[in-house]
This record gives sequence, structure tokens and C-alpha cells, in this order.
Amino acid sequence: MRSSTSPIILLIASLVIIASSAFSNEPAANEQSRDSICVRLLQTGLQECEAFTMLQELTSKAGRRLSGSLGAAVAVELTQHMMTSRGFEKVHAESVTVPHWVRGPVEEAAIITGKKMTPLTICALGGSIATQQEGITADVVEVKSLDECKALGEKARGKIVFFNRPFDRTKLSTFEAYGGAVDQRSRGAIEAAKVGGVAALVRSMTSALDDVPHTGAMNYADTVQKIPAAAVSTIGANFLSGLLQDVKNLKVRMKLTCKTLPDTLSANVVGEITGSEKPNEVIVVGGHLDAWDKGSGAHDDGAGCVQAIEALNLIKKLGLKPKRTIRAVMFMNEENGQRGGKAYPVAPERKGEKHIAAFESDAGGHAPRGFTVQDSVMLPKILQWKPLFDKLQAGDISRGGSGTDVNFLAKDGVVCFGLRPESHRYFDYHHSDNDTIDKVNPRELEMGAIVEALLCYLISEEGL
Amino acid sequence: MRSSTSPIILLIASLVIIASSAFSNEPAANEQSRDSICVRLLQTGLQECEAFTMLQELTSKAGRRLSGSLGAAVAVELTQHMMTSRGFEKVHAESVTVPHWVRGPVEEAAIITGKKMTPLTICALGGSIATQQEGITADVVEVKSLDECKALGEKARGKIVFFNRPFDRTKLSTFEAYGGAVDQRSRGAIEAAKVGGVAALVRSMTSALDDVPHTGAMNYADTVQKIPAAAVSTIGANFLSGLLQDVKNLKVRMKLTCKTLPDTLSANVVGEITGSEKPNEVIVVGGHLDAWDKGSGAHDDGAGCVQAIEALNLIKKLGLKPKRTIRAVMFMNEENGQRGGKAYPVAPERKGEKHIAAFESDAGGHAPRGFTVQDSVMLPKILQWKPLFDKLQAGDISRGGSGTDVNFLAKDGVVCFGLRPESHRYFDYHHSDNDTIDKVNPRELEMGAIVEALLCYLISEEGL
Repeated sequence: MRSSTSPIILLIASLVIIASSAFSNEPAANEQSRDSICVRLLQTGLQECEAFTMLQELTSKAGRRLSGSLGAAVAVELTQHMMTSRGFEKVHAESVTVPHWVRGPVEEAAIITGKKMTPLTICALGGSIATQQEGITADVVEVKSLDECKALGEKARGKIVFFNRPFDRTKLSTFEAYGGAVDQRSRGAIEAAKVGGVAALVRSMTSALDDVPHTGAMNYADTVQKIPAAAVSTIGANFLSGLLQDVKNLKVRMKLTCKTLPDTLSANVVGEITGSEKPNEVIVVGGHLDAWDKGSGAHDDGAGCVQAIEALNLIKKLGLKPKRTIRAVMFMNEENGQRGGKAYPVAPERKGEKHIAAFESDAGGHAPRGFTVQDSVMLPKILQWKPLFDKLQAGDISRGGSGTDVNFLAKDGVVCFGLRPESHRYFDYHHSDNDTIDKVNPRELEMGAIVEALLCYLISEEGL
Repeated sequence: MRSSTSPIILLIASLVIIASSAFSNEPAANEQSRDSICVRLLQTGLQECEAFTMLQELTSKAGRRLSGSLGAAVAVELTQHMMTSRGFEKVHAESVTVPHWVRGPVEEAAIITGKKMTPLTICALGGSIATQQEGITADVVEVKSLDECKALGEKARGKIVFFNRPFDRTKLSTFEAYGGAVDQRSRGAIEAAKVGGVAALVRSMTSALDDVPHTGAMNYADTVQKIPAAAVSTIGANFLSGLLQDVKNLKVRMKLTCKTLPDTLSANVVGEITGSEKPNEVIVVGGHLDAWDKGSGAHDDGAGCVQAIEALNLIKKLGLKPKRTIRAVMFMNEENGQRGGKAYPVAPERKGEKHIAAFESDAGGHAPRGFTVQDSVMLPKILQWKPLFDKLQAGDISRGGSGTDVNFLAKDGVVCFGLRPESHRYFDYHHSDNDTIDKVNPRELEMGAIVEALLCYLISEEGL
């Protein structure tokens, strides 16, 4: 009896195995297991808040890390080290050629009224050309929109065009307010040049009233003269606007020394927990590693980078072995070229891989309210998990865009997600000297990592 | 036919009127009106963020306003002025006799190891007696709980008992972590004295690691010797705890000069929009006007006070005429006696009034997630309004406690509500020099007022 087994006993044994395996897949059991993992991720994350420790290191050692800068190179090394020291697999950098714009040592402006010069706090917009060496001194014409600028016609010739439409403060989502104002920054220099303007001065993209200018990407058009463009602080914008109504013969003098250098080599940083059952099916979680050369990119997007690393770290700390590969990706050059986002899907390393989901955090490190799903067909399936995310106070799951970098994967049918943190404070800091580590709360930051870890793990185990 | 009307036409006309009136009360129409009011409250509030303007004024002119202080008296005048200048009705102060404890000019401590003195950052707990004039110098015994203290027996005699159980950081709600640690502050001095301790030194009630001590109420028992009690910063607590393991013959010297003066006269401040149809039915919205004498009570509870005033202000700005009375109440003395909360329901002014609801904000001025309802029977009715609060990103409505002050009304069957803001940062500031206006975001603060305005208005129009 010991050495041989009757077919009937084998059959019974098989049925028992099938039955118990069916039982372990029952919703009740699954839910219990999911609940337990949710709670363990929460408690493990909040106990140590390791995302914040990483963000301290990133912002102090690689604070200003615009693409092509020394800071960006340090960030590439540092995040690889963060991953290897935490036992991630296949940690490596994937080369990306990036634009290389530098701010230059001088950016200054003043309002000239008669013999009086009143300083105006500005900073060059990212990508701007410099002014001539002696600066530009010119009359100023204020507009509230690109259309108003177009309508100026000859009245703008030889002048600085001052775009001064504020954020719509009545929007509950500050991202909506940003979306409603940012055309002035991105296209102001083009439209101003078309009507003969000599420079563009753009109200900072924030609803905060302070003397800190906010930089950000601006564009030129091939067929239009390039003119210098700068952001002015909201206090400066209000002051200038008031003076323009009262004072005749007001001029502004502005000087920028920024320039664009030749493209240079940089990298996306990648590390993973390789899937135990389906290693070629990949779930990406990431942020962008570059940051504007103001402040230290703590919220934008140091937060998103360290949250992605921490999401994998938490899964490892819990001893989980995900079925599919969960991969942290630090995308380079989101701010002024998106070269990292474009390069990732077509890199040689992607051969044989099938991406099923990608989750980006690029909306700051405040407490997450939930996340968006870019694919409406998939939304009902994801909403089945809502009770779990409600436990994390992050159950606001809705259809919406994901992130600039992972969006390049969405084009290939990958289901993309975007973390949605509380947004009220974000644009107080965004792209400015205010974006520093002291504005980040360790617990709020960690909650984002916990949400990412849970979603990635659920997708890894249950598919999409 | 023109001058006379047939009974049949009258009947038809009546039916039309009845039908159209029924139609106007249909859910769809009501919902539209509610939706519109919700959106207008949101947009009007966020456009100006007037709660923040008021909080700036309150914290700068009446920063330290512990009951009985000059600051508290200024706050009583100032909030009446805020209400009258905004056209509130029946604005007045209602006398309340309050305790009067003062911190005194000196509060200091040091760790003595051999000939070395290392300063320790402390502050007196509210209500503590002073040390003798030369201070107390004694050995230290560390415990993690009241039970550990009780178990010390004779080992505590003549020593300073150091209560050092930290916040449980794994709790998602920091209020839960606070609730799990605060017995050390409230009863530490009693239990330490029972075992012969000469003073109590309590780890600050925060999960933040910094050198800022957090004060707060502590108790004495009539039958137990009173001993001095102080909070030590979390950095100080960790440092002391580490030294205690390594260094023999360590002593701590501490000196406090606080004292309790005779009770004094103060007041609750009350102002309202008198109901247009049922003026005697009252909905209270409030916060507490007193604050600990550290920082300037911006979050605790300047936020709750200005939100209540702003809630009424928003209803007035929209031109609404609530059916029932909506009343802002600034309760005095929540922190160390709750005399204002106790006095309000029994004040002579309450004669002939019927209170139906009371809403307190005393959990900080961060972005509201929702609110709690103290009465479980009423919860389903309130949850019908959830879609409206979801529009404000404040749809997390659950059963739970309301607030210390309005709780005295709950005893009379009044349905009580508590605002529930995001809690991660709150105890970083609570009862400490960190609780200042720069920690408050104008939009987040305003959102609390908008939620209050909407709930009060809904209850006013639709009853409970």
C-alpha cells in the first residue's frame, strides 16, 4: 500500500486538491487576504515612512536636476543605489538623449517710471532664449489671453507683452485652474512675437500671492521669431498691472542669460520585482526624475519617484512574491521634452515584454484622495477594489488622464493610472523655489506609496 | 366670459396650481436647487477665502488666548466685530466664568550627567503647579504607560516619572494615535504622585520628531498630592531615553513657574442669521475661541471659529434666507474646563429656543474629508445628501463623535456633527509653538467653511 496508490485514491486526492484550490479562490477568502495585505501595507508604510527618507536624500544630494544637469546625473546614480540597496532586481539605467537648457547667472527685471527703478521678481521660462547682453527695455502692454494678444496687432510692436490672466480660484481642482491659465506660459512667446512683441512676461502659474516666480516649459514655433520669455511673481504681476493703469511712459527692463546647449546623454532608471509566475507581464509604477532648476523638486516630482521605489519596497517588506513583474521607472526629462517617456516603450530592453498597466504619480506628495483610470472600459473592474482603497482614504477612483510619461504606454493599449493627491497646496510650490522638502509631510507622502503598492499588487495577482 | 369664471375652469386652474406646486417639490427640482447652492457656495468661498483673512486677524491680534488671558478678551471683542461687520443678527457675548491658569516666565529643564548639563526642551502642562523656586533635581524613571507607573511602587519614590510611550504611527487617523497616548498627559501626574514621584515629565503628544514641546490639559485628583508636570519635546524624550540606558546617576533638573489664579469672567460669542420661518429652531455651528498659550492657535481652534463665521457669511453672500436660525457660536474654555460648552445650553438666552443640530470644527483647518454624525438614527437621512458633499470632496460621512463643546447639546438630543479634515499634519502643530498661521492653507481652511455652510443650510431648509 505504501509503494503503490490505487486510481480511486488518486482521484479522491485530486478532487480534494481541486476543491481546496477552488476554495482558496473564493471571493470571501480573497477578500480576507486582500484586506490583510491592505492593512499590512498601511501599517508597514506609516511605521517608517521610508519614502520621506529617500526624498530627503534625493532633494539634498540632487536638488536641482533639470535634464542634462549635474543634479540629474547624480539623481540617476542615487535612485539606482536606492533600488539595489533595497534588493530590487535588474536595476539599470536606460540611455536617453535629452535637451540641455541652462538658466544662466543673471535674470532680473525692473519697472522704470521716470527716474525710478522698482525691481520685479522674475525668472526665465524653461527653454527661453537670453535677452541681448544689455537687456531689453521697452513699453509694456498687458493682456489677459492669447486672443487679446492676437487682437493687439500693431499696438504690440516693439513692446513687452505681459500675460496676466490669473488662476480661476473658484475651481476645486487646482489642476483645472492650471489648465485654464497655462496656455499663456506655453504659447505666450509665440503669440507675442507674431504681433511684433520683443519679449513675453507671464504671470506665475499659481493662485498663491507671493513674490516667488514659477518657471515651466514654454514653446517656440519654427516659423516665428524667438523672443525671451520670463515668469513674474504674482505680487509683481499685480503691482505692474496696477501701475500700468496709473502711470504713463512706464517701461520694463529685463535681462536673461539662459541658453540652450547641445543635447546630452542621460537616462531613465529602472528596477523591479520580477514576477514569480508571469515575469514578462509588467506593471510599471513611476514618476519623473528631472525637476525644474528652482527649489529642489520635492513635490514635482521627487515625490513620485520615491513613492514608486517605496511601493516596491513595501511589497518586498511584506514578503510578497507578485505573480507579474512590478517595475519602478524613474522617467527622465518630463519637464522639457518627455524624452524618457518616449524612449521607455521602444527601448531594446522591452523586447518580449508585455505591459499591462502603468501608474504615475506626478501631482505632488500630498495625501492621496484616490486615482484616475485612463481606460473607461477598465473602470468597472477597478471599482470592485474601491472598498480596499476606501480603507486608505483613497477611494476616489474615476476616469481621467494618468501622467505624461506613462501616457506613451497608453498609446499601446496599456491601462494607465494617475495618483490624485489633495491639490490645494500644489501650485503654491510647483516649479518654484518653494518646492522644497519642508513642504512635504512624511505620512502624506507615504500614503501615496501605499496606494501604489496596493494597486500594483492587486493587478499583479488578479490581472486586468 | 371675461368677468366671470366657471367652476370647472376654477377646478382646472386649481389642479394646474396643485400639479405645478407638486412638481416644484419633486426631488429633481430640489436636487437642482441644492446642486446650484452647493456650487455657488464653493465658488463664492474659494474666490475670496475670507475665513483665512479672519484667521490672520484673530491670530495676529489675539494670538495667545487661553481662558482668562488678555488675548481671550481681545478674541471676544474681535469675533463680535467680525460678525457685526458682516451683518449678522443678535451678535452678543454670553458671560462664562473660566479658570485662569498662567504659564509664568520660567520653564526650563536640563539633564545632569556628572558635571555636564544638557538642556531639555520642555513646557508646563496646562494646569500644573510650579516647582519650588530652586526647581526640582531628581533621578528619572522611564515608563511607557500608566500601568507601568503603578507597577513601580517604591522604585518611583523621590523620582521624576518620565512617561515616554510614543504615538502609534501605524494608525491612519492621527486622532486615534492621540487617543492612544494622551492618558499619559492627562493622568500622568496623578499616577506618578501615587507612587511617590516628585514630578511628571511627559513625551509630547505628536508623531513629529522635533524639539518643540506640546502642552495640553492635565488633571489632579483631590485625594492625591499635586506634583508639577511638563511636556518634553520628542527629540528631548528620545535623547533622555537613550541616556537613561547608558548613564548611571543621571538626574534631571526642572523648573516651572506656572500658577492658577482665581476664576475670572469671560464669554461665549454668539451671532446668527435669524430663521425666516422658524426663528426659534436653531442650528449651531462653532469652534472654541480659547487656545493654548503656545503658537497662536491657528489650527486649534482659530480655524473652527473663523469657519463658523464664514459659513454664515457665505449663506448671506448668496442672498439665502434660511427658514431656521443658523447661529455661529465661539465657545470659550474648551481647552481647560469646557465652561463655555457647559454654559451655552443653560444660558438665559436659550429660553424658548429649540436646538435641532450643532456642528463643531475642532480638528484643524486642513482640507475636509467629510464629517461625523453623532446620532446613528439620523445617519441614513444625512447620507442622502452625500452626493452633494462628494462634489466638495467631503463625502466621507460616518458615525462618530462631534466636538467637546457641542457635545453638551447632544445630551439634550440635539443632532451633533463634527468636521473631519485630513489629519496627518494636525498633531505636528497641536498645542505647540508650531500652531501658527503659516501652517494653514487658505483654500483648505475655506473648504471647511463651505461644508459647514452647506450642511447648516440643508438642515435649515429640510429639517432633520
